[in-house]
Amino acid sequence: MVKNYNVLFDEQLKIVEEKLEKIFSDKTPNSLYEPCKYSIIGGGKRLRPLAVLFSNYVFSNTFQNSYNAALAFEILHNFTLVHDDIMDNSHKRRNRLTVHKAYDVNTAILAGDTLYAYSFELLLKDAYNTDFTICNDFTTAIIEVCEGQALDKEFELRHDVTVDEYITMIYKKTAALLVGCFTVGAKIGKANQEQIEAIKDYAKYLGLAFQIQDDYLDTFSDENIFGKKVGLDIVEGKKTFLLLKALELAQGVDKEQLNLLLKNKGTTFENVNNYQNIYKKYNVDRLALDKVEEYIKLANNSIEKLKSAPNFDFLIWFSNLVLQRDK
Amino acid sequence: MVKNYNVLFDEQLKIVEEKLEKIFSDKTPNSLYEPCKYSIIGGGKRLRPLAVLFSNYVFSNTFQNSYNAALAFEILHNFTLVHDDIMDNSHKRRNRLTVHKAYDVNTAILAGDTLYAYSFELLLKDAYNTDFTICNDFTTAIIEVCEGQALDKEFELRHDVTVDEYITMIYKKTAALLVGCFTVGAKIGKANQEQIEAIKDYAKYLGLAFQIQDDYLDTFSDENIFGKKVGLDIVEGKKTFLLLKALELAQGVDKEQLNLLLKNKGTTFENVNNYQNIYKKYNVDRLALDKVEEYIKLANNSIEKLKSAPNFDFLIWFSNLVLQRDK
Repeated sequence: MVKNYNVLFDEQLKIVEEKLEKIFSDKTPNSLYEPCKYSIIGGGKRLRPLAVLFSNYVFSNTFQNSYNAALAFEILHNFTLVHDDIMDNSHKRRNRLTVHKAYDVNTAILAGDTLYAYSFELLLKDAYNTDFTICNDFTTAIIEVCEGQALDKEFELRHDVTVDEYITMIYKKTAALLVGCFTVGAKIGKANQEQIEAIKDYAKYLGLAFQIQDDYLDTFSDENIFGKKVGLDIVEGKKTFLLLKALELAQGVDKEQLNLLLKNKGTTFENVNNYQNIYKKYNVDRLALDKVEEYIKLANNSIEKLKSAPNFDFLIWFSNLVLQRDK
Repeated sequence: MVKNYNVLFDEQLKIVEEKLEKIFSDKTPNSLYEPCKYSIIGGGKRLRPLAVLFSNYVFSNTFQNSYNAALAFEILHNFTLVHDDIMDNSHKRRNRLTVHKAYDVNTAILAGDTLYAYSFELLLKDAYNTDFTICNDFTTAIIEVCEGQALDKEFELRHDVTVDEYITMIYKKTAALLVGCFTVGAKIGKANQEQIEAIKDYAKYLGLAFQIQDDYLDTFSDENIFGKKVGLDIVEGKKTFLLLKALELAQGVDKEQLNLLLKNKGTTFENVNNYQNIYKKYNVDRLALDKVEEYIKLANNSIEKLKSAPNFDFLIWFSNLVLQRDK
């Protein structure tokens, strides 16, 4: 029987949302926990906690013993968003003011630190009942995320970033946390060592696919479906897969235009169409989608060995979800 | 035989310094780990790692299995300093530029986050060999520190902070981490539950004594011995034990002068002597020292039950160190 993962996914999402809403509800001082709550209830796809829960489910056929770990990853993720938004001086996230804009920078630094601490507290609860080494996977993930953010900031100052360097950076900044989620879920689900290695690869390729998909959607999605303004990466001069690939391929005046984007650290929304056209001229949009497909294929190949797991087919359903998302 | 704790303490301090120097030496990217190293090799008393090591030693007569935990607490402490210095907009610490002044705010936020993550990684190493519940003590400590910092920032905006509220704040901001250090050390040293409770109380009172001693020294120490300018708390209008106690007791023009300090959020160095005199007039200097002595006595009373521990006398030596310090 093929399970209806759409329904199961939404059910678990609802449970995650309910649990997130209760966190910090009885905590003081308010000056600390209000901004923590503000950060957490701001929505988002909740992909990370769901990855933990379902990675457990794949192997054990239950979500038990992984809810705290799932919340831990979501809270950890929110901590990184709060601090990244300060560093990137972002005003909005998910259609709301960022924490440091809704409150102030000091409050946001401290709220981030507190989210961080609570994420460990939650993780420990499940670690006691299951496998203590999940604490190492958690710590490894967060160190990678910090290194990824450092590389991202370094890249902002450099004009010679290669596509390979970019892949290393997004592995650390985006994929490593997903690797952590799937690894922890699998360990709680009592996967064996070979299975854990397989799912780590799966999560890595999925994370890379996800980020390049993100780059593609930011520049080429349908604004009505995307739900936010298209072309922001171009406006901000962000060194995405598209821009770096275009820099590799473009020549003449096109190359000059792209270099101008680097030099001026961005452009206006009026010029987005111009850059979209350069990307299309060199087939960079297609190359990005090919890369996403390639990574999804690699993800699916990684889990060949997991076919005996009770809910193996979730992993295929999930990678397909990433491949087909349009926002 | 009475042990020479001066020698033993210095020996362990040297080992801690050597280990701290090696941390991050092989890590990249440099943009992330240079500021981490800068923060850690900046000196300081290293009281927290030594508290972990010696709390272990008190019960087990060895420092084994606690070096990673000791370093973890020092690195965690440094993380809090890096972020606190941003929030307090401090330019200098230990006679060097603070991390966000030597680099920039974004770098300091991320370096702090990374120190935080590494502290957990180190702690886990000793947790595997000893007692996993030390992870909870660690997490509890850091949550208290965050709450303490939030209260501290709240108090900056309030004019009606009481001495009792101040004690709650310094418990969280300063004493809680020391409680964590002694608890973790004791657990690694295989102390029993009753012994752990006793040493928690000891650390709590010691931490409170330490902070009030800090307040006293900032205003009343001999500048030549203190090694930095006396009176900075007054200049910055910090709500210390001295100021809050003086506000309780002073009357007439003295009270007006103190209220002026609150209203103007500080004063110039020229006026320090004026405020020192008000404090002395109301015996606030003596009351602070009495409070330090009272807490040291409570600390020493807390450990009555620990007399059978192999190196019980260290605890008395250590509390005496706090009581008699002049810088």
